[in-house]
Amino acid sequence: MNTRVKVVEKILSANDRLAEQNRARLDQHGVFGLNIMAAPGAGKTSTILRTIEALSPQITIGVVEGDTAAVTIDADKVIAAGMPAVQINTGGECHLDAVMLSGALPQLPLDQIDLLIVENVGNLICPAAFSLGTHANVLISSVAEGDDKPYKYPNIYRGIDALIINKIDLLPYVEYDLDYFKRGVELLNPGVVTFPISCRTGEGVDVWVQWLLGKMGRRE
Amino acid sequence: MNTRVKVVEKILSANDRLAEQNRARLDQHGVFGLNIMAAPGAGKTSTILRTIEALSPQITIGVVEGDTAAVTIDADKVIAAGMPAVQINTGGECHLDAVMLSGALPQLPLDQIDLLIVENVGNLICPAAFSLGTHANVLISSVAEGDDKPYKYPNIYRGIDALIINKIDLLPYVEYDLDYFKRGVELLNPGVVTFPISCRTGEGVDVWVQWLLGKMGRRE
Repeated sequence: MNTRVKVVEKILSANDRLAEQNRARLDQHGVFGLNIMAAPGAGKTSTILRTIEALSPQITIGVVEGDTAAVTIDADKVIAAGMPAVQINTGGECHLDAVMLSGALPQLPLDQIDLLIVENVGNLICPAAFSLGTHANVLISSVAEGDDKPYKYPNIYRGIDALIINKIDLLPYVEYDLDYFKRGVELLNPGVVTFPISCRTGEGVDVWVQWLLGKMGRRE
Repeated sequence: MNTRVKVVEKILSANDRLAEQNRARLDQHGVFGLNIMAAPGAGKTSTILRTIEALSPQITIGVVEGDTAAVTIDADKVIAAGMPAVQINTGGECHLDAVMLSGALPQLPLDQIDLLIVENVGNLICPAAFSLGTHANVLISSVAEGDDKPYKYPNIYRGIDALIINKIDLLPYVEYDLDYFKRGVELLNPGVVTFPISCRTGEGVDVWVQWLLGKMGRRE
């Protein structure tokens, strides 16, 4: 049991070292890095597309798409929106890590990019354990997933800098107690900023984008 | 690299051996075992509660709730519905395996149970790699997750015996191409039976339950 703990520590610290290198590389190119995590189907790609729509052409956004399989559905959508994208196919692995991101960064024109968005693998568990070296971690929770997710997947709520609550256009059609949800979040991550949005209608995207620009040290 | 592959093979075969033991124990007690997998918030617990509602009191259903944290929200709901439930807290692990199920089985009154439902951890990736020893594997996909999930999470669609498409009451409010979804499923798992249901309204639950009874070798 001790051996296992030691091995896990070694893997984590190797990942953390590489995450620091990723961060240094982003800083060197003046790129702000954003790691987006969520369950499958919460709207990671839709949020990225809405963010591109709101910020382009003033801000150039590069996207790294983490997928467990070879399909490039999400990367294709980003490229169709006029921004550079590269896919990391994890080959069945359930999360991105700093090594994978390190391999993807040279494939992007970092000197032309202001904001790098990393779309993590759709998973509420494993991605929480691996730093990538980005400047901010954001979680997207869809109201269609239910209001109990902070209570059930606490770890991923602890390490985030902002929380997007997506698909608020579905609120009239689902059983969802926003106060119960927010109490759970507050217990795990007191004061974390939340952005209720609808990628379908565009509602709330402007507030999210203003926060993001502030974090980037920019105002449009 | 060869070493790593060998280690993974050993772990898998140890899991498979324990899965066989779990199956033998269920058979010995005349219990039909069902493994339910899904992304977070797709409606695993809601489907279990609808299944209990449809089959009780004729069929006694025991439930094993796989959770990554200590909260017993789901197990409490099953117990409130009058059925025995036990929780496996994986302590942050992203899936159930045969070892965990083996530890949970002695905590259930197997002689009084006809059907054992195992609610796996909410995750579309890792649970697919670990047999539990159940007699059938079922995946629940919510229409709110989008129609591209088979293409993005192919492995979990390959090993299932049935597919429940939940939250069909939301179809008027989401962009979802059922034909595109089903084409993806058919590529991965030709002929797999699908059950469109709404746990909210109860629509379609009767058809799902009849299939389940057939698999159990029973007709009500």
